Amino acid sequence: MPLFQTWLNPATAIRLLLLCVALWVTPIAVHGKESDSSTNQAKPIAPGIWRLHFGNPERFTPTFFRSADMDKVGLKKMASGQTMPVDAAKISFQVSDRGCSLQLPMTSSESIYGFGLHTELFDMTRSEHGQTGRRVSLKPSDSPENELGESHAPAPFYVSSEGYGIFVDTARFASFHTGNVAPVRKTMETTSSEAQTSTAELYRARIQRAKTMLVDVPTAKGVDVYVFAGPTMLEAVERYILFSGGGTVPPLWGLGVQYRGYTKYGAAETLALAARIRAARMPCDAWGVEPGWQSKVYSSSFVWDTNRFPDPNGFLQEMRAMQYKMNFWEHAFTHPTSPIYDELKPWSGDYLVWNGLVPDFSTTQARRIFLKQNDSALFNRKVESVKLDECDYQPESATPWSFPLAAKFPSGMDGEVMHSLFGLLYQQTMWEPYQKKNMRTWGLVRNSHALASPLPYVLYSDSYDARCYTRGLANAGFSGLLWAPEVRTAGSIADFYRRLETVIFSHDALINAWFIPNPPWDQVDRKKNEHSEFMPDRQAVADNVRQLLRLRMSFIPYFYTAFNEYHSTGKPPIRALILDWPADAKTRQIDDEFMFGDSLLVAPMFAGETNRAVYLPPGSWYDFWTHARITGENTIEVTNSVEQIPLFVKNGALLPLAEPVEFVKPDTCFDVTVNMVGERPADFTLYEDDGVSTAFARGEQNQIKLRANGDKHSAQRSGNYRGPERYKINGWKTF
Amino acid sequence: MPLFQTWLNPATAIRLLLLCVALWVTPIAVHGKESDSSTNQAKPIAPGIWRLHFGNPERFTPTFFRSADMDKVGLKKMASGQTMPVDAAKISFQVSDRGCSLQLPMTSSESIYGFGLHTELFDMTRSEHGQTGRRVSLKPSDSPENELGESHAPAPFYVSSEGYGIFVDTARFASFHTGNVAPVRKTMETTSSEAQTSTAELYRARIQRAKTMLVDVPTAKGVDVYVFAGPTMLEAVERYILFSGGGTVPPLWGLGVQYRGYTKYGAAETLALAARIRAARMPCDAWGVEPGWQSKVYSSSFVWDTNRFPDPNGFLQEMRAMQYKMNFWEHAFTHPTSPIYDELKPWSGDYLVWNGLVPDFSTTQARRIFLKQNDSALFNRKVESVKLDECDYQPESATPWSFPLAAKFPSGMDGEVMHSLFGLLYQQTMWEPYQKKNMRTWGLVRNSHALASPLPYVLYSDSYDARCYTRGLANAGFSGLLWAPEVRTAGSIADFYRRLETVIFSHDALINAWFIPNPPWDQVDRKKNEHSEFMPDRQAVADNVRQLLRLRMSFIPYFYTAFNEYHSTGKPPIRALILDWPADAKTRQIDDEFMFGDSLLVAPMFAGETNRAVYLPPGSWYDFWTHARITGENTIEVTNSVEQIPLFVKNGALLPLAEPVEFVKPDTCFDVTVNMVGERPADFTLYEDDGVSTAFARGEQNQIKLRANGDKHSAQRSGNYRGPERYKINGWKTF
Repeated sequence: MPLFQTWLNPATAIRLLLLCVALWVTPIAVHGKESDSSTNQAKPIAPGIWRLHFGNPERFTPTFFRSADMDKVGLKKMASGQTMPVDAAKISFQVSDRGCSLQLPMTSSESIYGFGLHTELFDMTRSEHGQTGRRVSLKPSDSPENELGESHAPAPFYVSSEGYGIFVDTARFASFHTGNVAPVRKTMETTSSEAQTSTAELYRARIQRAKTMLVDVPTAKGVDVYVFAGPTMLEAVERYILFSGGGTVPPLWGLGVQYRGYTKYGAAETLALAARIRAARMPCDAWGVEPGWQSKVYSSSFVWDTNRFPDPNGFLQEMRAMQYKMNFWEHAFTHPTSPIYDELKPWSGDYLVWNGLVPDFSTTQARRIFLKQNDSALFNRKVESVKLDECDYQPESATPWSFPLAAKFPSGMDGEVMHSLFGLLYQQTMWEPYQKKNMRTWGLVRNSHALASPLPYVLYSDSYDARCYTRGLANAGFSGLLWAPEVRTAGSIADFYRRLETVIFSHDALINAWFIPNPPWDQVDRKKNEHSEFMPDRQAVADNVRQLLRLRMSFIPYFYTAFNEYHSTGKPPIRALILDWPADAKTRQIDDEFMFGDSLLVAPMFAGETNRAVYLPPGSWYDFWTHARITGENTIEVTNSVEQIPLFVKNGALLPLAEPVEFVKPDTCFDVTVNMVGERPADFTLYEDDGVSTAFARGEQNQIKLRANGDKHSAQRSGNYRGPERYKINGWKTF
Repeated sequence: MPLFQTWLNPATAIRLLLLCVALWVTPIAVHGKESDSSTNQAKPIAPGIWRLHFGNPERFTPTFFRSADMDKVGLKKMASGQTMPVDAAKISFQVSDRGCSLQLPMTSSESIYGFGLHTELFDMTRSEHGQTGRRVSLKPSDSPENELGESHAPAPFYVSSEGYGIFVDTARFASFHTGNVAPVRKTMETTSSEAQTSTAELYRARIQRAKTMLVDVPTAKGVDVYVFAGPTMLEAVERYILFSGGGTVPPLWGLGVQYRGYTKYGAAETLALAARIRAARMPCDAWGVEPGWQSKVYSSSFVWDTNRFPDPNGFLQEMRAMQYKMNFWEHAFTHPTSPIYDELKPWSGDYLVWNGLVPDFSTTQARRIFLKQNDSALFNRKVESVKLDECDYQPESATPWSFPLAAKFPSGMDGEVMHSLFGLLYQQTMWEPYQKKNMRTWGLVRNSHALASPLPYVLYSDSYDARCYTRGLANAGFSGLLWAPEVRTAGSIADFYRRLETVIFSHDALINAWFIPNPPWDQVDRKKNEHSEFMPDRQAVADNVRQLLRLRMSFIPYFYTAFNEYHSTGKPPIRALILDWPADAKTRQIDDEFMFGDSLLVAPMFAGETNRAVYLPPGSWYDFWTHARITGENTIEVTNSVEQIPLFVKNGALLPLAEPVEFVKPDTCFDVTVNMVGERPADFTLYEDDGVSTAFARGEQNQIKLRANGDKHSAQRSGNYRGPERYKINGWKTF
């Protein structure tokens, strides 16, 4: 068959034929073909949660790498009988060579929140032109202060002011167009040229009424979409968090203060600094050791530097004798001199970062090899926690330092998917040793993603914009994330106080003094601190700082309750006002106030401010400092000195506050005073357990129900925890 | 077979089976599998040009939508016998779900140029840390002043200081990592733990010597790569341009001045302004009419606004009587009131832009329907050219206004590919009517891409940064693009002069006065111009401006030669110094000087400057203004008044300069004086033709060879053009 061979050889012909047949029987992969309607049948997977299956989803998605099983028990406790809140018939799906996309219906007045930890954006439909929509690009970034949607934790989950949530199960750099695109409607049909203009007018009017959410998922030829019912936004968020596996509970010491020491200090200087902080009676539970503990950094050897730390165990013993819990910095990029380098190499990506291997944490082999060295260096020495740095990306940098999107990993993951999941997988890897020992940990991480609420890691950044850091607190809860708006140095003492005040009412009270040899209360200016030039009034500053840190410590029992309820109900411990007052349109754009637990409204101030406007939602409120009663649904102007953050307590609450301790010990028992705020205060439950292990989750936990009814007070303890008592109710006080 | 059915129904089983077989026989599509070496055999496709075929390339690429056939005749005239300049065995290729990638070898000292029209970057291996490489992201952008690699014309072609060019035939938003990524080398094998450290050191030393160019092409499962031999960079560029179909030749009037009139003017006011410019005897060949000629804009109706322009033909007739060639603004987004709306709709994308349809210009149907209306409005009225606006994209905007990447077009193209090609396809569409009439045109366009050199459109921007605009001139030639660094208003009169001086030595001498009612030489300040508050010295300014525009007009014969040689040899008419002096390392980073034709070096100044450093390459040079001789390979400090741009003429050249005309007429004959510059001037060829039709390309062209040998001069005319003479050699002058 010479003719046949000239234009098509038999092997090619067979390939073509087989490919045609394969494509014919797998219609979803055909270019541009829309899915048949049967694919977007909503399948209930838990009360109030549905999955819609579109096309042929990818393997490596957030649900594939779940950190915990869905909390079915918690979900069953929620209000049932919800109907699917989105009309599945109105969702359209499209596949192309470059990926797939979804169109979901929106109303023109709908607000959208979430998409992970955002510090620049809030209502995701807002742009400079008002509520006209924007493109939110979910790319992991180390420069989160941008309005593109990039973030340290870009999660493809959003919650709508209409009272439902949507999770698109993808690790791709998906984009969400929140109402700023205009699909050509198929319904617009005109015939005569006369009618055109008016039809067009009509059509335009129509698109002004309805909007479209366009979800653009590159590469994937299909995607699973999870819909979370309300009826309120908060319930949709709770369902998403329980679907993720529930919220994490920190060890009790995790709610105290963390201080990260000077990066240039070896063992001796670190011990001296740690002793100095104890001598100053500054509350501090956890101590952070920076990269220099290792023989090689940037990249990491995971081997102790025996020059700077000649006796690791001795160093740890002395720190522990001072009652510090330890946190060690690392990043994952493994230095050529690390003992595990050769063994890790086949389980690493095909590009180096800072000359170090990038472990493929989605493989058990990489996890095992990586942990072998980390066990030897850290976990076998009972180090309580780690800080996982540099695991994000630089999507908008001209000189990105991390692995390229085209990287390939032994699991089959590519660089894009790995960048989305790298923080999640790294957290999971480092959590493993604690889980095996049934211990809690409380770490720091610079990258996370969807379904992250069970992970005991708090996000942080280097971007250091005070207003953005506060906005991060308002935002994190929407997506079940935790955020440490850490304080370092400051432009002024006022700036330092204001930042510290926000830190105190955050998920992790972190003083990150890694680049200054002296504590910041001695000198807030970096250069002067480096030269040990102290502020003249440093004693008074230290007193104020101690007072503020003690304020944090007094909230530990109250905040521990918020975390325990985060665990069991999915309710985020820190929340934007809109989550608690969804019917109050005035809360929709408020991104500089937040609820800390159930009854405390926090309205941070910023450097140079001594007054600000605070919106108080419907109900009555009490100024935390003056106890003055204030009518809600009202914007008030408040004046607070630099050492006082504006705080407001909700009417009708019990607010237990503890006598501050310097640090939490195994036998710490908090002296609690219960403040009765306003009329008919609701009950409040304290949670009691060993504070460090995971036994609480298996029922070794007591609940202490606080109840006040007029002059009658009660504290009813129940449960199976039998260890040291954590709370002594010392008194009841009308607020 | 009930058991079988429970886990796998027969239909699914057959699909899986067929898919497995198909994948087995089409190995390139297997996830992460590297291509076998047979696929990157270099195939010669013309002398000095090879194609390497990797994997399974996409259909919609720049070569698929070629604007012209490869110029095989031109290529044959080039030096032959070149060997393939890149070792194909050292190129690695990889396919993944998200696309494909290539690794190409680089040397550590290699510089890379091109990637389309860039105004911010020059040597693409430079970053803030030196020549350490960067990521160049080829996304079409309306905000080109960024260092990400985005551009009004992002072309996947680069040329190396090592003397070769690479074109990656893709319309995807590809990224090129110019040496800033570190692949894990397979060669590094270690066994004993003792040897690790030293091997690692060795390894690090190795990657310091060699670099990798990583090309990341999303979506595509394969790609064709074209390699262009040198031995010089300029020859590699010429081969690329001839491969593209050769360079375009403007109509003679296109080399004159274009003035774009006030957008708010209707016919009467426009005619008055045009008459005023004639009265002032300002050189001007082409007149731009802004959006308001249409009944509807933003989007476009392509129907005359009969209020503002009650008699289009009458208006055009009067403009022509004043000897203006006409250019009309439009963008492609078709308004609902346009007569073609309904007919165009099925041939448009599935998203609207500004409520207008986006025609799929890759379909003959959309082109035909779109041209029907444009013919009726413009081309049937013999309009000479158009300005094609808004055809770029906003890749980094949070609120992009153009169609989303997820858009789908009737051809099967998606939004990403369409955004890359939209400018090219729009240009091709609008060029069609001229090609049919064998006429040249000379338009403006805001988006282009690869293989664009045959297209008679000049790129422009709204970004208006003077230094970036100059850098654009140095850069455009690398990729066979044309650039109009237009002048509008200015911060000062000095700023205006300096900008205008660069405009004069650019591909298109454009004064874009669209937002001011009076010519800028009356008032350079926008606000004052709007209020007709004129500068007190406006008469003197007008005299200087006229002088500068006349300078441009005197260069028309010389510049027309450069364009004719661009057409036949691929040599860009404006070039960065490195292209003419590749062996001189000092030219590598020079992005604020350029060659205009073969013998004029232009070193623009910027607002506020009266002196600057100018690097003159090896050889001798003459100051254009003083005729002083200057030794090259030398950086000199020059001082020029605001009306004088620093210009230097190469020793050993003939520089023909014409007596300036105000505009080019069908019978214009230039009075030329031939300047003999320095010793043994090389011959110079003038090109003579009808100036407006495409007959020159079919041989209706004369060449006039100018030769000077001591006191003997000659001008030898040859060729088949028989129309009016274009050049009268009036004299020969020692420079």
